[in-house]
Amino acid sequence: MNFHTRKWIKPQDLNPNRSLFGGRLLEWIDEEAALYAIIQLENPRTVTKYISEIDFKSSAREGDIVEIGIEPVKFGTASLTLKCEVRNKMTRETIITIDKIVMVGLDENGNAKPHGKTKVEYVKDRLEDR
Amino acid sequence: MNFHTRKWIKPQDLNPNRSLFGGRLLEWIDEEAALYAIIQLENPRTVTKYISEIDFKSSAREGDIVEIGIEPVKFGTASLTLKCEVRNKMTRETIITIDKIVMVGLDENGNAKPHGKTKVEYVKDRLEDR
Amino acid sequence: MNFHTRKWIKPQDLNPNRSLFGGRLLEWIDEEAALYAIIQLENPRTVTKYISEIDFKSSAREGDIVEIGIEPVKFGTASLTLKCEVRNKMTRETIITIDKIVMVGLDENGNAKPHGKTKVEYVKDRLEDR
Amino acid sequence: MNFHTRKWIKPQDLNPNRSLFGGRLLEWIDEEAALYAIIQLENPRTVTKYISEIDFKSSAREGDIVEIGIEPVKFGTASLTLKCEVRNKMTRETIITIDKIVMVGLDENGNAKPHGKTKVEYVKDRLEDR
Amino acid sequence: MNFHTRKWIKPQDLNPNRSLFGGRLLEWIDEEAALYAIIQLENPRTVTKYISEIDFKSSAREGDIVEIGIEPVKFGTASLTLKCEVRNKMTRETIITIDKIVMVGLDENGNAKPHGKTKVEYVKDRLEDR
Amino acid sequence: MNFHTRKWIKPQDLNPNRSLFGGRLLEWIDEEAALYAIIQLENPRTVTKYISEIDFKSSAREGDIVEIGIEPVKFGTASLTLKCEVRNKMTRETIITIDKIVMVGLDENGNAKPHGKTKVEYVKDRLEDR
Repeated sequence: MNFHTRKWIKPQDLNPNRSLFGGRLLEWIDEEAALYAIIQLENPRTVTKYISEIDFKSSAREGDIVEIGIEPVKFGTASLTLKCEVRNKMTRETIITIDKIVMVGLDENGNAKPHGKTKVEYVKDRLEDR
Repeated sequence: MNFHTRKWIKPQDLNPNRSLFGGRLLEWIDEEAALYAIIQLENPRTVTKYISEIDFKSSAREGDIVEIGIEPVKFGTASLTLKCEVRNKMTRETIITIDKIVMVGLDENGNAKPHGKTKVEYVKDRLEDR
Repeated sequence: MNFHTRKWIKPQDLNPNRSLFGGRLLEWIDEEAALYAIIQLENPRTVTKYISEIDFKSSAREGDIVEIGIEPVKFGTASLTLKCEVRNKMTRETIITIDKIVMVGLDENGNAKPHGKTKVEYVKDRLEDR
Repeated sequence: MNFHTRKWIKPQDLNPNRSLFGGRLLEWIDEEAALYAIIQLENPRTVTKYISEIDFKSSAREGDIVEIGIEPVKFGTASLTLKCEVRNKMTRETIITIDKIVMVGLDENGNAKPHGKTKVEYVKDRLEDR
Repeated sequence: MNFHTRKWIKPQDLNPNRSLFGGRLLEWIDEEAALYAIIQLENPRTVTKYISEIDFKSSAREGDIVEIGIEPVKFGTASLTLKCEVRNKMTRETIITIDKIVMVGLDENGNAKPHGKTKVEYVKDRLEDR
Repeated sequence: MNFHTRKWIKPQDLNPNRSLFGGRLLEWIDEEAALYAIIQLENPRTVTKYISEIDFKSSAREGDIVEIGIEPVKFGTASLTLKCEVRNKMTRETIITIDKIVMVGLDENGNAKPHGKTKVEYVKDRLEDR
């Protein structure tokens, strides 16, 4: 799994208990899944369709740095299923894991749009092919 | 199910496709679950432990009003399991449902703290008892 | 008065004195009044026209839960006058009361638009009538 | 009246009707009144106690620049009463006026604290006196 | 140099070290430069093109009030070069200075648009001329 | 240069011209530099001291995905100098480059604190050494 995006936990990301607000973490994960899928499906109209169960294994505190990892699991006709893990950058302790996040690419009318992709592509390779 | 909190979808709540950003919706749900549990367990140190699968049934657009419903499912020793539905206020169309959100009350050391509750209490009744 | 929307006071809602930032409270009230009026007038182009004097009776602290109550006072030709109270959910202590918030529904050109409403309607009843 | 703080209306400041969200404007005014009072009373524990009626005379649109003016009206024992006007920087059209915003300085226990001020002082003069 | 906009440092403006988050300060400066240039060039399509080196001389803490000063340095054909200083309102201690911020006015196609201005104009004078 | 953090440009990140707000971009860069330095210096009290000139080469639009790259340039006694590039993920077009961002690690009294580091370390290696 590749860990890209990193977040620095600031006061505005805390709940009143002064640990990382779970809602903020879910917001970050949804954004990361969306941008991963948009890049892979080459379709900016990509939306979240399904998220499997979420287990909060540990939390994080102000000043901690978390990193968000995404891994493709399955390419469907119009969908892309992702796996996600969020961990503490310094300790590598896992904060959350999600087995399936299903993203679907839409056409201009909002209907599922087949993407023709079957495996991960790197932007570098795409650019070189052109 | 009682629907309390309402949200007016503003530009800052949209994704670049101009529909409700899924991450914002998850943030709202997590906050609503937290405050429901805090009131019931009478413990401000209440955190999200588990969220069951989430199915995005429909979306919403700028200017729509959504309302968030929470219903208690089960009182555990230190936990409270909630059910959640988010719907469009005008059409009553369901946007999302979540069967189980497990909230856990903690003591000052961050350990699970038994709450002794077995059923929903209304603040009104609590105040009258005093 | 019905109290719907609830807010959990988080670090980002505080002023530097670590009590609830008055500006945030006013923002919440304006949003609640707007969505109440939009639902009643069935007009998404509803704007705030007037707010009567605001007395800050008590404040709230991080982690407190506040609830915002709205009650219709008068249906004008194009306007709806609301009454508002914000209180602490656990103690029921009043934080703020506002006697009159005048919301006006506009047409597409930004002019006041008569709404033909004379009393509160519940969405449930509207849907059943259809 | 001196107009200091200016705001550039960005997408996150709009309501779903795409005009300036009234709640954001009230948030800006409350912050401006607070910092004006903090500087005059030389007390960082200064809170909003009362706001007189607010008339929304005109609105503003994305990209507009508004400026917020504050003028002291009366120095009480522990309070400072301010007058506020918000206007469009280019057209000088008035958006909102508020006759009285009462700010009160508190001591460490949260009680009103006499400030001994009777007129506006400029920081420049204070520094020169030292 | 004229100091207009003032900011009150709130919890959401802090970094995890509880001093003013540098990124927030840069955001405030960029906004202030933009609105100054928009007013002077009378062109809402004004963008930041260049910022010279930034030296963080001191920081600020929660509850401090900072004020942002802007001064025009040079009117180019389509550009306006500004100088910026941010200081602590009470102590007048300098937090940051920037020698050159180059703002460029664009036409509808996004190309640099000559503005014909050679010196600072005050809105008051412009209005009186009309 | 390694590109880690990615951002999806949402409505709240736009200026009124509907392109990426420069202030938001600077905020993202400052955060990325801070967390890179915190990890390398193993000191959470790391602050931004200096940023060299910033040239805005191109902009980005709503829905675009940008990625932020950071590269260490020089380890000083208490400082770490970084180089930064932000580019469009799909086109690889450069949006901004900054030659030097100087981050300094502080001790508990806010004085520069020697870090003893001379080259980039990977957390993986640190953990394996333990």
